Amino acid sequence: MSIKEKVILDEEDIPKAWYNIQADMKEIPEPPLNPMTMEPAKPEDFKPIFPMEIVRQEMSRDRWITIPDAVREVLRLWRPSPLFRATRLEQKLKTPARIYYKWEGVSPPGSHKPNTAVAQAYYNMQEGVERLATETGAGQWGSALSFGAMLFDLKATVYMVAASYDQKPYRRIMMETWNGEVYRSPSKNTQYGRKVLAENPDTTGSLGIAISEAVEDAATHDNVNYAIGSVLNHVCLHQTVIGLEAKQAFEQIGDYPDFICGNVGGGSNFSGATFPFVADKITGKKPDLRIVACEPMSCPTLTKGLYLYDYGDTAGMAPILKMYTLGHTFIPPPIHAGGLRYHGDAPLLCKLVKDGFIGAAAYHQTEVFKAAKLFAETEGHIIAPESAHEVKAVIDEALRCKAEGKEEVIFFNNSGHGHFDLSAYDAFLSGRLVDYEYPADLVKQALEHLPKIT
Amino acid sequence: MSIKEKVILDEEDIPKAWYNIQADMKEIPEPPLNPMTMEPAKPEDFKPIFPMEIVRQEMSRDRWITIPDAVREVLRLWRPSPLFRATRLEQKLKTPARIYYKWEGVSPPGSHKPNTAVAQAYYNMQEGVERLATETGAGQWGSALSFGAMLFDLKATVYMVAASYDQKPYRRIMMETWNGEVYRSPSKNTQYGRKVLAENPDTTGSLGIAISEAVEDAATHDNVNYAIGSVLNHVCLHQTVIGLEAKQAFEQIGDYPDFICGNVGGGSNFSGATFPFVADKITGKKPDLRIVACEPMSCPTLTKGLYLYDYGDTAGMAPILKMYTLGHTFIPPPIHAGGLRYHGDAPLLCKLVKDGFIGAAAYHQTEVFKAAKLFAETEGHIIAPESAHEVKAVIDEALRCKAEGKEEVIFFNNSGHGHFDLSAYDAFLSGRLVDYEYPADLVKQALEHLPKIT
Repeated sequence: MSIKEKVILDEEDIPKAWYNIQADMKEIPEPPLNPMTMEPAKPEDFKPIFPMEIVRQEMSRDRWITIPDAVREVLRLWRPSPLFRATRLEQKLKTPARIYYKWEGVSPPGSHKPNTAVAQAYYNMQEGVERLATETGAGQWGSALSFGAMLFDLKATVYMVAASYDQKPYRRIMMETWNGEVYRSPSKNTQYGRKVLAENPDTTGSLGIAISEAVEDAATHDNVNYAIGSVLNHVCLHQTVIGLEAKQAFEQIGDYPDFICGNVGGGSNFSGATFPFVADKITGKKPDLRIVACEPMSCPTLTKGLYLYDYGDTAGMAPILKMYTLGHTFIPPPIHAGGLRYHGDAPLLCKLVKDGFIGAAAYHQTEVFKAAKLFAETEGHIIAPESAHEVKAVIDEALRCKAEGKEEVIFFNNSGHGHFDLSAYDAFLSGRLVDYEYPADLVKQALEHLPKIT
Repeated sequence: MSIKEKVILDEEDIPKAWYNIQADMKEIPEPPLNPMTMEPAKPEDFKPIFPMEIVRQEMSRDRWITIPDAVREVLRLWRPSPLFRATRLEQKLKTPARIYYKWEGVSPPGSHKPNTAVAQAYYNMQEGVERLATETGAGQWGSALSFGAMLFDLKATVYMVAASYDQKPYRRIMMETWNGEVYRSPSKNTQYGRKVLAENPDTTGSLGIAISEAVEDAATHDNVNYAIGSVLNHVCLHQTVIGLEAKQAFEQIGDYPDFICGNVGGGSNFSGATFPFVADKITGKKPDLRIVACEPMSCPTLTKGLYLYDYGDTAGMAPILKMYTLGHTFIPPPIHAGGLRYHGDAPLLCKLVKDGFIGAAAYHQTEVFKAAKLFAETEGHIIAPESAHEVKAVIDEALRCKAEGKEEVIFFNNSGHGHFDLSAYDAFLSGRLVDYEYPADLVKQALEHLPKIT
């Protein structure tokens, strides 16, 4: 056993503070706008739905933000997560590259999502909130929030997109096992839900509708707040435990990546895993480091979108964010990586892409599943379709290293397992999986509906 | 962070040899009998279906059997598995007891099963076998064998009980992702399968039928062997990595259990986790150590069965084993813990129960799921219904410690996750879960069909 298969840090090494990349950015993103006034959002604009500490973190430019002990206590149920060396994948590809991955599938909900769910639940509990409302598409975020809320004795209400509610009962049951209250969205529980149902009783819902229901639930009830699973600064911040642990582990083994990649839906797992490394690029310590965000060809926000102000949600109720966007009314084709079907991306990540620190690449789902299959055959784990996007990028890089005879170091964030995505694997294995061309016309239409910013 | 949540050994600490409890037993079990001759089975009787090294291990009385380096290389994809301290469960129960558990759910197939699947695949590969045939009920073992076979470039053929094949497609897809070839059993692939189908085209199959198909497949093809997931000595042997790692971890933190429990289906995860501790009891080092095997009230082999010679399979083709049995024709009620629905138990385990070193307890499934729910609420993991049986025992013990004010140490083997058992959780949460009385009459009938041993 010459090469270690995995590096697992001590529990004491769970980071004591989150890293805020805004402290090191040469230029920070333009501020979010209040959708009512079109003016830069003030802290009090967020108060009806977020606890003050979350709002403070959202706007902070401090480099380090202390992780409360009570949050670290919960994180150690599964953290530090292992940093794996993918030796079997290297051997299969006959590459001289060294491939490492951080494995977030060890958390009880099975992904990186609880890293922020636990922190958000804690701050809400601290400020006397009794219940959290949120939306979920495929169910990863709803599971994580139910889990996090439960551990701090909060209730969780999850508006689950009707199509997923019907097709993915296991994710619903997981939430209910952790005491989450799950509504099929649109639901009769909110005014907006009732309105949608009245107009279209047979609708299968959308993430946009579910967000609107969750926000309404929070805004119209005392002691109820909203929790969000990606996009915003504080979510990216909480996910930096991934990158900080990875950096420590690399230090322990005396290695450092030349190439880093991850998948981008709203951008939080990617931001969390990469920002501590991006810092080294921004500050000139590692100017040659290459960092690539991987996204689906069906929803290629960073590779095809425009860098403009747009609504965060479909209904136009959420803050207006400066980001790469395909238009908030754009509905992507039904690919299996449900977590990557978002029209925009985290403003922090978008700014870093805009400024050239981070690159982007888009892939079709059949080549993505082919990569996931090879990963399962070599490293064992059956991973989420979202995570498989970066594995495709990793395989391409490793083969390039082979062709060029270069011993480069590749690192990626393996954000979750695919235990609830096996029907997608079945479609791939049986040859039923289809690719969708980039829907240029739909995007063009959607981009005509951006908010008018003067 | 005063108390560590988990102890994870170094990869170098993966055991270098398996522990064979036969070396320390005062009296070993009576030998298996050849079902054709009713005489003690000879090594050559097993040759048509097992590689010689497995047969040697099955009959060995050596205390330590070296784990090949190539097997340890694969085990380190997920081993050493963590030893968790269940601090949140302790706090919830307000018990002075210290509760520890070994978490086998971290393996890619999600249970302890690959510990032996990998070893069996390796020895078969070494001896030139090209394909392994096996049966699977709920799918845990079939997944593990597909995984293990793939890693040593063997093919795997899995006969999956028709009822499970129809109800649990995710397990089938998992096997196929790891290149397993899965047949709905009874299948047209074997003579026995065709016979059963001709007599009863609508049958939903049984584990007994699936075993018979797998054994026939192996016995009638060159370079094809059979692989078994529990019961036999070599399987219990391979699972001792669990107990050996646990002992090392306890040494590292300076603690030692007063009470150990685990679930028993065929007995391999229980044997593997406990035998290294049972050794201390047999040899007088820890005479007061209490060890309890947990089983379902619907299939209470150790608590209600008779200690007699019986067939290992339903069809009467497998070796006749001296064990506690409810009769090989007994079909237990359809509880959700499918892995615990076996009429017999591992002969080594049965002998230790018979000789008083190990105790047994039986539980109803609603109290078992209630325990699993409390575990999910405190420790986070949603565990397999099989594993939930010992959690029920653990909670009872912890509450006894509280009542008696005793700081005892409790250890259990948490054998796998319940990601594919969520419909059972749904039944529990919605109040649809039913308990079955012990089917005394069915057992009485089955015990009338034991083989006649003169």
